[in-house]
Amino acid sequence: MNDCLQLFRNKWLEKPRIVLGVMTGTSFDGIDLAIAKIGMVKGKLLFEVLAHTMTEYPVELQEYFSTITKTNQTALSDLSTFNFLHPKVVGASITKFLAENTFTNTIDAIGYHGQTIWHQPSPIEKGTFSSASTLQLGSGSVLAQITGLPVVNEFRYADVFFGGQGAPLVPIFDRDVFFNPHNEVVLVNIGGISNISILNPSTDDVIAYDVGPGNVWLDYICKKYFDKDFDTNGEFASTGIVSNSLWFKLLEIEFINLPYPKSTGRELFSPQLLNEIISSLEYISPSDILHTLAKFTAYCISKEIEQNTIFNTVVYVSGGGLHNSVIQKYLREFLQNAQFSTTEQKGIPSDAKEALCFAYLAWRILGGMPIAIPSITGAKKETISGTIAFPS
Amino acid sequence: MNDCLQLFRNKWLEKPRIVLGVMTGTSFDGIDLAIAKIGMVKGKLLFEVLAHTMTEYPVELQEYFSTITKTNQTALSDLSTFNFLHPKVVGASITKFLAENTFTNTIDAIGYHGQTIWHQPSPIEKGTFSSASTLQLGSGSVLAQITGLPVVNEFRYADVFFGGQGAPLVPIFDRDVFFNPHNEVVLVNIGGISNISILNPSTDDVIAYDVGPGNVWLDYICKKYFDKDFDTNGEFASTGIVSNSLWFKLLEIEFINLPYPKSTGRELFSPQLLNEIISSLEYISPSDILHTLAKFTAYCISKEIEQNTIFNTVVYVSGGGLHNSVIQKYLREFLQNAQFSTTEQKGIPSDAKEALCFAYLAWRILGGMPIAIPSITGAKKETISGTIAFPS
Repeated sequence: MNDCLQLFRNKWLEKPRIVLGVMTGTSFDGIDLAIAKIGMVKGKLLFEVLAHTMTEYPVELQEYFSTITKTNQTALSDLSTFNFLHPKVVGASITKFLAENTFTNTIDAIGYHGQTIWHQPSPIEKGTFSSASTLQLGSGSVLAQITGLPVVNEFRYADVFFGGQGAPLVPIFDRDVFFNPHNEVVLVNIGGISNISILNPSTDDVIAYDVGPGNVWLDYICKKYFDKDFDTNGEFASTGIVSNSLWFKLLEIEFINLPYPKSTGRELFSPQLLNEIISSLEYISPSDILHTLAKFTAYCISKEIEQNTIFNTVVYVSGGGLHNSVIQKYLREFLQNAQFSTTEQKGIPSDAKEALCFAYLAWRILGGMPIAIPSITGAKKETISGTIAFPS
Repeated sequence: MNDCLQLFRNKWLEKPRIVLGVMTGTSFDGIDLAIAKIGMVKGKLLFEVLAHTMTEYPVELQEYFSTITKTNQTALSDLSTFNFLHPKVVGASITKFLAENTFTNTIDAIGYHGQTIWHQPSPIEKGTFSSASTLQLGSGSVLAQITGLPVVNEFRYADVFFGGQGAPLVPIFDRDVFFNPHNEVVLVNIGGISNISILNPSTDDVIAYDVGPGNVWLDYICKKYFDKDFDTNGEFASTGIVSNSLWFKLLEIEFINLPYPKSTGRELFSPQLLNEIISSLEYISPSDILHTLAKFTAYCISKEIEQNTIFNTVVYVSGGGLHNSVIQKYLREFLQNAQFSTTEQKGIPSDAKEALCFAYLAWRILGGMPIAIPSITGAKKETISGTIAFPS
């Protein structure tokens, strides 16, 4: 088999390829699609974004999908349906996207993350057996049939099998696309949770980890008091001021003072914890809560950058938090010596970054290159990972 | 991408390959492993069985796995664990098998069916959306990491996507391995359910469908009255006689009188239905029940063969029912003009037939050949199906 595989991989790397990446958020708010031309040209990575879009989920499926993935106990029939319906919805949006873009390029492959149904990187015991595990559903086979294109998925399985966290996977993309021999580069992604990647200009080392909350608490408060999914441009937050009582309580959260590597999620930064904190204090206006939380998001990010960089630091911000003016204001206050930039200036649209990352990982897998960095995920070895489904 | 894929497939078919097939029963009674040398030699299929074995599941996992796959509602953490633990158990038995066999041949790939968690080939509706679906778990990625070999799985997805039943998949194996230009050939597999494949000597047409119960009711009665998992060699059945009251009740079951194509399962031939039938009758001894059920299994098979074959019929029997003397006796009584043979006489060990089938399907997928027959599965088109996971 190795003879076949070697031929395949050599051919794949012979010229730049066009790969489409798909990322669908855990809150089923949208389907991110992005197309890039990727190749090795004279020993250097070519990565050129050709197009990207974000399309919405059909409203009637949003709730159904959320229920399936967010309860611990789910009917098998619903999981099975999800496994087919999710790629069908994604496939329909790809078809529409391609029709609108009238590509002259043929797409070579799709990188499709699917939806995480369960993620358990620490082994759990069953009698004398034990196993870590992760489960993403959304069949690559089905998407391959719909689109007529090869689909790569199951990006996290091999890393988790080898003892890794199966995450984060973005740092390898950050390293290869944003590396700069003259500057220390920090990529900041402010999604539900905030994470950073720090690239060392003299080696190809990357440090990457979660630093604290991103928008998760901001969105929750916005929904609770203003009935809006998120605080557009930080408008509500900007009418508030810092509540010192809340601010000092937030600084006590143990996670933010732990040394890296560390990772976190919505389980820790939950509505419950925030409500507990707020109800232990005297009344704070919703705008003040938002303002303080935005400052806290900026603080968690800045503190880590401050501690782990030395000089000439360029900071690229992406994710929803990029559009929150209060977060941005505090980031600049906390990091006065850093040079701020956006991923756009490097040709990577912020909103498409994750989708582009999965296009890149698919390209690497098809070329036989590892996709996870063991020093970041904690895995025992580098893994190529991924499965490939071909159309009929 | 097509350029890469074509190279891969041509190379794969250039010489015979060694493929290992894995089949694990729905009752978690064992893991069937079989290795075959498969290739096209001068336009003809070479299919040579090199080794096979059946290993047992670790007892402590049998019940855990059964609970996961047999309840409609399952904790996501258990499904995720199953997705990793099942290939780990399979991987351990492959490693042991290969060590014991001291192969000089390198294995090229593994065909791993995994376990069906849910199978819903008829579309179900969700608002204005609808989808058929199927879900097999047991990650091919994980098995590839454990064995260091490429793993093919997700055999049924593409067929179900294109409107097929995703089953049966064995007929294509039956057709290619058992075809005989001089005889009508019938393959009978007596597993939980009985199914047949009928090969026409003048075309490469195959008719294949489920004909009725195999051992499902026999095993149930055996467990209930004799506390044994199955009736070894039909010993209990052979001490009984036909109960006419039960016999005539069984003949009324609608399914057995439907024309083909048809498929069935344990949902129809359930303990509930059998208990209902039996309790509507006067007392019948357990051995008489077993004897009558064995005759009924033979009848369901024979009736279909009788109706759908013409002349010179060779019948190959495989599956657990091959070892039930009462089923075998009645088959010969009902089909006096047929010539009985075993798959062994064609070099295919009966117990390894399904595992060999999945080795063969994996070989076809890697060579870019379709694996399901639309006239049998009901799909709108031929599908190659399958995903391929590579080791790191």
